[in-house]
Amino acid sequence: MRAKVHVFLKPGVLDVQGKAVEQALHGLGWGGVEHVRVGRTIEFDLAAQDPAAAEAEVKAMCDKLLANTVIESYRVEVA
Amino acid sequence: MRAKVHVFLKPGVLDVQGKAVEQALHGLGWGGVEHVRVGRTIEFDLAAQDPAAAEAEVKAMCDKLLANTVIESYRVEVA
Repeated sequence: MRAKVHVFLKPGVLDVQGKAVEQALHGLGWGGVEHVRVGRTIEFDLAAQDPAAAEAEVKAMCDKLLANTVIESYRVEVA
Repeated sequence: MRAKVHVFLKPGVLDVQGKAVEQALHGLGWGGVEHVRVGRTIEFDLAAQDPAAAEAEVKAMCDKLLANTVIESYRVEVA
């Protein structure tokens, strides 16, 4: 199965990378750009048959390694 | 409008970050994980009315700033 994990900073946590991108886009003439957030996406193949079990496994991976749950939230897709 | 940009390394380009995540997951006991790719996602609000025009604008941003098109590919969603 193919798993996709989207990791984003929680709302309220200052996203310095997003701010930098926003200012760079403004500098290039795209002044209408606002509220930029930069996150990361981790995709991988997983040796599992049952979608529900696979999703639970991927969530465990997120809690343990892929996301810093103090400041980041994540969304899991398994297909 | 809300734009989402997904940026990934092109197939064939060595993804060292993905390799590191893969080895860490193996080390934590998830041996069934393979082909890990790490990408980034940039989300932002855009002052535009027309979806087609907005998409063209976001693609221009990708080519100019958000992605390194020599080694990265991107996907744009506008909603």
